[in-house]
Amino acid sequence: MGGEFRIGVLVSGRGSNLQSIIDACADGRVAGRVAVVVSDVEDAYALERARKHGIEAIYHAPGRLKTRLEPEREEALVALLKGRRVDLVCMAGFMRIIHEPLLTAFEGRIMNIHPSLLPAFSGLDVQRAAIDYGAKFSGCTVHFATADFDAGPIIRQVVVPIEDDDTPETLAASILQQEHRIYPEAIQLFIEGRLKVDGRRVLTLAKQGEP
Amino acid sequence: MGGEFRIGVLVSGRGSNLQSIIDACADGRVAGRVAVVVSDVEDAYALERARKHGIEAIYHAPGRLKTRLEPEREEALVALLKGRRVDLVCMAGFMRIIHEPLLTAFEGRIMNIHPSLLPAFSGLDVQRAAIDYGAKFSGCTVHFATADFDAGPIIRQVVVPIEDDDTPETLAASILQQEHRIYPEAIQLFIEGRLKVDGRRVLTLAKQGEP
Repeated sequence: MGGEFRIGVLVSGRGSNLQSIIDACADGRVAGRVAVVVSDVEDAYALERARKHGIEAIYHAPGRLKTRLEPEREEALVALLKGRRVDLVCMAGFMRIIHEPLLTAFEGRIMNIHPSLLPAFSGLDVQRAAIDYGAKFSGCTVHFATADFDAGPIIRQVVVPIEDDDTPETLAASILQQEHRIYPEAIQLFIEGRLKVDGRRVLTLAKQGEP
Repeated sequence: MGGEFRIGVLVSGRGSNLQSIIDACADGRVAGRVAVVVSDVEDAYALERARKHGIEAIYHAPGRLKTRLEPEREEALVALLKGRRVDLVCMAGFMRIIHEPLLTAFEGRIMNIHPSLLPAFSGLDVQRAAIDYGAKFSGCTVHFATADFDAGPIIRQVVVPIEDDDTPETLAASILQQEHRIYPEAIQLFIEGRLKVDGRRVLTLAKQGEP
């Protein structure tokens, strides 16, 4: 891709996954840098985090729709990300479903993270859903974002046990720890060109010089 | 329950899970015995296995329906199991959906095992489904059988990783190994009275004398 690898992060909330990506860039686990952080929520703490690290932090007004950006706003977001020469878009707690302009402009270059072992428990409030269902395991999933919400090709998953005394809050905390580990891993595999998408499957190629 | 704990096993095929239950009864991991094995398939190898161990093995003609027993045949099955004073019914590769007479007669006393991490990948040919979906983990689930197919309260689950080079066959073999471990465990917990069903959740009570 020539020069440094530039990551754009989309956020809506406190940005703990954003922090894990920033940290991984800082200590070399991710060979890139966060070029821009964009939030659809004006007072999202994630913007504050970005500024603390000297990263450009932008509130991008979403328009009047609830579950997605207004189409013109999504086109403006594409222009914004292209203007920063973003190589990879990472959704990190971004609470809107993305659509055509963004998906097309960054096809195969948008990742998302979800706090369950997809395909189980997609959607919202998923830790409670997993506990109420009586599942003995949940986890988290890093996947490519596609037009199928919560159902793009899976890059990495981690399993987290659900204990009898878990609450949605304790389970969310256990899962979040793992999210902070695998999101940077998935990004680095992408940077190294080691993710091979084959239909719905994402195979991991060996590192050059390794078997 | 007074006297020995009597297990009835429903089968349709080769009966490898039946074998794991027989073995666990023999070596004391399960404090009960298989009192009867019933198959809806006349030449199921599971019947042969049962006979080798001196266990009553019955071919129970299913009637003309494909996915379930004919209602009269299901009632006859209930009579058969009651006649053997069965305390717990274990479905082990039994390829028919059970309905009212059996569910009512043995309410809360029917278990099934499924080769996926439910609620993901219910139904048939699930190892292929998990691989094709691109899931990084699957596993197996022991659950109580209810009117909701593949969706009764979950007693035990085990996770099995899906490797890039797994085929439906290799994955099935890995999962089956774990099935053979957790099905006897779940049965023993039932016998010990340690499974507490709370809504959809099945909590495991501590062993008497343990915290």
